Amino acid sequence: MRIDIITVLPELMRSPFEASIMKRAIQKGLVEVHFHNLRDYTMNKQRSVDDYQFGGGAGMVMMVQPIDDCISKLKSERNYDEIIYMTPDGETLNQKMANSISMYENIMILCGHYKGVDQRVRDMHITREISIGDYVLSGGEIGAIVFCDAIIRLIPGVLSDETSALTDSFQDNLLSPPIYTRPAEYKGLKVPEVLLSGNFGKIEKWREEMAYEHTKNRRPDLLENEE
Amino acid sequence: MRIDIITVLPELMRSPFEASIMKRAIQKGLVEVHFHNLRDYTMNKQRSVDDYQFGGGAGMVMMVQPIDDCISKLKSERNYDEIIYMTPDGETLNQKMANSISMYENIMILCGHYKGVDQRVRDMHITREISIGDYVLSGGEIGAIVFCDAIIRLIPGVLSDETSALTDSFQDNLLSPPIYTRPAEYKGLKVPEVLLSGNFGKIEKWREEMAYEHTKNRRPDLLENEE
Repeated sequence: MRIDIITVLPELMRSPFEASIMKRAIQKGLVEVHFHNLRDYTMNKQRSVDDYQFGGGAGMVMMVQPIDDCISKLKSERNYDEIIYMTPDGETLNQKMANSISMYENIMILCGHYKGVDQRVRDMHITREISIGDYVLSGGEIGAIVFCDAIIRLIPGVLSDETSALTDSFQDNLLSPPIYTRPAEYKGLKVPEVLLSGNFGKIEKWREEMAYEHTKNRRPDLLENEE
Repeated sequence: MRIDIITVLPELMRSPFEASIMKRAIQKGLVEVHFHNLRDYTMNKQRSVDDYQFGGGAGMVMMVQPIDDCISKLKSERNYDEIIYMTPDGETLNQKMANSISMYENIMILCGHYKGVDQRVRDMHITREISIGDYVLSGGEIGAIVFCDAIIRLIPGVLSDETSALTDSFQDNLLSPPIYTRPAEYKGLKVPEVLLSGNFGKIEKWREEMAYEHTKNRRPDLLENEE
């Protein structure tokens, strides 16, 4: 997979791509991530990418021209499965979306910043608008980090133990059951006996029950959505 | 506000705190962010923080002892308003939660990694479990970056123009209306005339209508939740 990220703050995004899973996926050649600094596409001396809102109001708006030029250049070089704009008013990311997007070949991600982008950018180029949740961030860069991590870890070969991703929360509409590791007793707190029993049928049944109970208590909405 | 972050990957988290809004908030002294490397609290030669699951299954579990020692040390130094565990099965972050947490004095954030933490850590120390959305990430570090950004930008004095945060999506249960900046015409695409009219009453009314329409089309659930 190739991911092109358009941003005014490439330096903000570096470290998450240079550590852990995303670093490994890049080193293994399973994903290519290219950052494009929007300021390289400006045509004014100050390299400014934003301007005041028409109609007044607080917050600066990202101008059409640098974004249009950057996206158009990339589009002329290859075909993109999606050109995604990270924005709080987009479709809310969930695991099912992450699963399907993880199978694409080329995606482009535009990170909104300041008050957002000129609406005409969205009308001209954007094929999908994605939000990572119902809260506002200082920029789309942080949303893009989340989005990239969620999809990159699903690309076959990225996780060392692929069955691990399959048993994560949300993959089956259930939250995970509680997990424990050594020691069996810590400051008087014991691991549930069934987990030490060696009876895998019983363990499986206990985990299913706990996952169901936990989901019913915390996120009954997930059970309702089950088809 | 003081934020203590416990993680096995402090290096993954650096750049978002060293740029833009979070950097500025830290430089202005409005927030202090301290990273605690969990490996500094291990008692084995390999400095390993994880071990196999009791009962079998894919994915490593973070051990109780290093986390308990780190949290206990911090708790002995000051009082915390919340000790938060970032986990996909936690309460889903929203703007209202971000608003209220932004007023706390001291918070601690534990980043889960691998398959998650030994359940006993949660039972002993955690006062609140927070998820940033219904998807799985490679670690709680990325969730913590999102969470910190969402709350730090709300601390008074952090944003240069505070009214900007008040008109963001979600602050009034409505998504933002479309925004535009110069030029008034770009490749034949024009800015809506009302925004150029100079009639602020009309502009305000248009924006309200557009925000309502946009919300009704994209996120009718937000309108239903309105009290």
